[in-house]
Amino acid sequence: MHTSPFLGELIGTMVLILLGNGVVANVVLKQTKGESSGWIVITTGWAFAVTMGVFVSKAFGGMDAHLNPAVTVAFAVATNDFSHIVPYITAQLIGAFLGAVLVWLQYLPHWAATPDPGAKLACFATGPAIRNPLANFLSEFLATLVLILGLSGISSKNLGELAIGVGPYLVGILVWSIGLSLGGTTGYAMSPARDFSPRLAHALLPIPGRGSSDWGYAWVPIVGPLVGAIVGGLLIRLFAL
Amino acid sequence: MHTSPFLGELIGTMVLILLGNGVVANVVLKQTKGESSGWIVITTGWAFAVTMGVFVSKAFGGMDAHLNPAVTVAFAVATNDFSHIVPYITAQLIGAFLGAVLVWLQYLPHWAATPDPGAKLACFATGPAIRNPLANFLSEFLATLVLILGLSGISSKNLGELAIGVGPYLVGILVWSIGLSLGGTTGYAMSPARDFSPRLAHALLPIPGRGSSDWGYAWVPIVGPLVGAIVGGLLIRLFAL
Amino acid sequence: MHTSPFLGELIGTMVLILLGNGVVANVVLKQTKGESSGWIVITTGWAFAVTMGVFVSKAFGGMDAHLNPAVTVAFAVATNDFSHIVPYITAQLIGAFLGAVLVWLQYLPHWAATPDPGAKLACFATGPAIRNPLANFLSEFLATLVLILGLSGISSKNLGELAIGVGPYLVGILVWSIGLSLGGTTGYAMSPARDFSPRLAHALLPIPGRGSSDWGYAWVPIVGPLVGAIVGGLLIRLFAL
Amino acid sequence: MHTSPFLGELIGTMVLILLGNGVVANVVLKQTKGESSGWIVITTGWAFAVTMGVFVSKAFGGMDAHLNPAVTVAFAVATNDFSHIVPYITAQLIGAFLGAVLVWLQYLPHWAATPDPGAKLACFATGPAIRNPLANFLSEFLATLVLILGLSGISSKNLGELAIGVGPYLVGILVWSIGLSLGGTTGYAMSPARDFSPRLAHALLPIPGRGSSDWGYAWVPIVGPLVGAIVGGLLIRLFAL
Repeated sequence: MHTSPFLGELIGTMVLILLGNGVVANVVLKQTKGESSGWIVITTGWAFAVTMGVFVSKAFGGMDAHLNPAVTVAFAVATNDFSHIVPYITAQLIGAFLGAVLVWLQYLPHWAATPDPGAKLACFATGPAIRNPLANFLSEFLATLVLILGLSGISSKNLGELAIGVGPYLVGILVWSIGLSLGGTTGYAMSPARDFSPRLAHALLPIPGRGSSDWGYAWVPIVGPLVGAIVGGLLIRLFAL
Repeated sequence: MHTSPFLGELIGTMVLILLGNGVVANVVLKQTKGESSGWIVITTGWAFAVTMGVFVSKAFGGMDAHLNPAVTVAFAVATNDFSHIVPYITAQLIGAFLGAVLVWLQYLPHWAATPDPGAKLACFATGPAIRNPLANFLSEFLATLVLILGLSGISSKNLGELAIGVGPYLVGILVWSIGLSLGGTTGYAMSPARDFSPRLAHALLPIPGRGSSDWGYAWVPIVGPLVGAIVGGLLIRLFAL
Repeated sequence: MHTSPFLGELIGTMVLILLGNGVVANVVLKQTKGESSGWIVITTGWAFAVTMGVFVSKAFGGMDAHLNPAVTVAFAVATNDFSHIVPYITAQLIGAFLGAVLVWLQYLPHWAATPDPGAKLACFATGPAIRNPLANFLSEFLATLVLILGLSGISSKNLGELAIGVGPYLVGILVWSIGLSLGGTTGYAMSPARDFSPRLAHALLPIPGRGSSDWGYAWVPIVGPLVGAIVGGLLIRLFAL
Repeated sequence: MHTSPFLGELIGTMVLILLGNGVVANVVLKQTKGESSGWIVITTGWAFAVTMGVFVSKAFGGMDAHLNPAVTVAFAVATNDFSHIVPYITAQLIGAFLGAVLVWLQYLPHWAATPDPGAKLACFATGPAIRNPLANFLSEFLATLVLILGLSGISSKNLGELAIGVGPYLVGILVWSIGLSLGGTTGYAMSPARDFSPRLAHALLPIPGRGSSDWGYAWVPIVGPLVGAIVGGLLIRLFAL
């Protein structure tokens, strides 16, 4: 059967969110085997969620395996080619929603076992350590900017053709680095799809004892990453191409 | 001397189970140097148990180094070639049993030092965090499906011929990712051989203070992975070849 | 636009310090998501801060991506070519200062939330576990010597042309190793720029409840690394070229 | 200047022991920055101590970078070429002693700060979690056997010429795996040089509050690894060449 970049973006983002939000569920929900296993588990899990999202995306026809609207926007700005924006972001938003549904299914008996509604929301959407919209925006902006500059560094130009196979691994290392170092303030969403679609799933799924989906914060992990992506894309265009 | 794929599958699976169940023993048994060192230790240990099982398998003539009946079934479904199923799975079941015996030997003084029979069983077979057969089946199904799709992504097609040497490492990263993110519910067996043969070893070996081998749960880590493998194999056949 | 090695050193060092001191902030400041997550988080964060600093440096025209005056001095001694010392170290000092300012911005709401002035200084400059100038000097000397010898080992001569793309990753592994093993005494500055410029930023930035910038200790992470670099450079010149 | 395999083995083993025993010192001595940071820190530190020992060894002319008498013996048995045994093992014993002296220097103020003599010995030599000579011998035998078979798997034959540059990294991953999974009983010496020479250094160095060097246990991490190496070498010769 014929595969397509659209399907690749969709399935890759689904796997990314299943693995990424899955590790949060493992750490913050009650009675899991990874309960309270800490920041090293969360950041390692998110790192290789990205690596594996990229590999699976490529297996299903993903050409670029962006898996993140901020990455799609940044490379559109960097290359002045905006043709992928609508199809890729559509696929990413759908894939992220499906990935969130799969997290809900994977940890099905643990929602009722967890009393704290905030812990349950954390398995879907990000939230700030200290609520301060401007500072939170700045955190997401900076983290995304480092993501985009890092991706530019891990390009075939610098890796050489022969190391391309380890590219998705190095992207995971980049996300590990950002999570460990910059994720402490807002949980490093760095992607509108990673935050918005799972937040919507949180609002729609039948989760026992569900609390607020905190829509008041939702603009931060959308606007911060997009501004970071645009600035990053312009920097690449000006200095690094 | 002439080596064979059968021997490669057997020795590789033996090393996989020795290292994989070994890390569980190190964390859950009493008076070990790794006692209570947590989920990051267990998941890192299982990740590189797989990497090293694959490398050792290749040293002993393993052609494919599946080391897992679910992987053998998935690739049989994906390629419509079922000729490896009987020899490979036979070798995997024997190798997993021998690996479990080696774990028992490696941690010999620690069985009597550990009062909890459940901790001792955990060094052999998996068990659910919250017992719920349907949800547990779903967890094993989903984890195995991600394993199969991830393996398809880490293929020579995507790595390029030149990165093939790091393939076993990337497979370890895949297992690290799944363990961190999806392992919190059932302990990510993802393989009938990984669970059944060590459970049998638990029932047969002279372990001081041994409790139940929990055969009532044994079907979940057999059927869940096999169904995940078949669905994964079909998806690869339909979309990713 | 035309990029330059000067800009590459500057931006690469900025990203290195943002990510490196960022992980310290995440672990030692209060109310972060990584609060008190320990030495494994700090060392992993610093390791991949270096990897990503190198990749970003290369994206912006960095030829050598030293990002550290000690590395620049060591290779100048090893190759008897001192022409890069002034421009590279200038760029590194400026980049490290800017990186420290970015850490301050990234964790903006957390400075007031953290009562301990020592914890706040630790997000900028290193300090000794036990204050003992001669022993602390020796620690920084030895750690830097291992850094330089390790970098010499991870050279294209040993990696082969084809593995050059993973060189920045292996440099990160080297820094992980040194941090885990030798960082317990002085916090492994190993670089005058990594310590001096952020210490200056600490003294100048409007940090609530700021304590002493501990200038009395500042010579140790400058002189120790430089002596280690000179000895390392001489050893490479004598034995390893 | 002319370098030599002898110097390469010596310097490489010195760096290996400095980094390997250094991480133990960081975790078990008092008032370090890594105090009580656990098994994940110790095993990660030892893993990349090996990787960096190999890289530094190669920089100084190491041809094989065995850094361990058990490895030298195993490959002698496997290839029926015993010519390297005397020079390599001599270099390894000297290098390991010098590495232990460097650990003592690196953590100089922390010996007096640590009351427990057993903790201080652990920074030099291994000791059993539960003292049981036969079981301890078996643990060291099995761990070394897995080391040798793993090294055989990570050979150029399996990696391909093009991935040789990452070989030392994969050897580190092998040691990470063994430490996590099999190290919980005896601390995975797996090398006579790694245990004997630092134990001798412990007996000779002026360590405040030094206790017994536990020479009664010293035969286990010498004989266990050597028997494991011989059996591993024979298995490679019979099955894997």
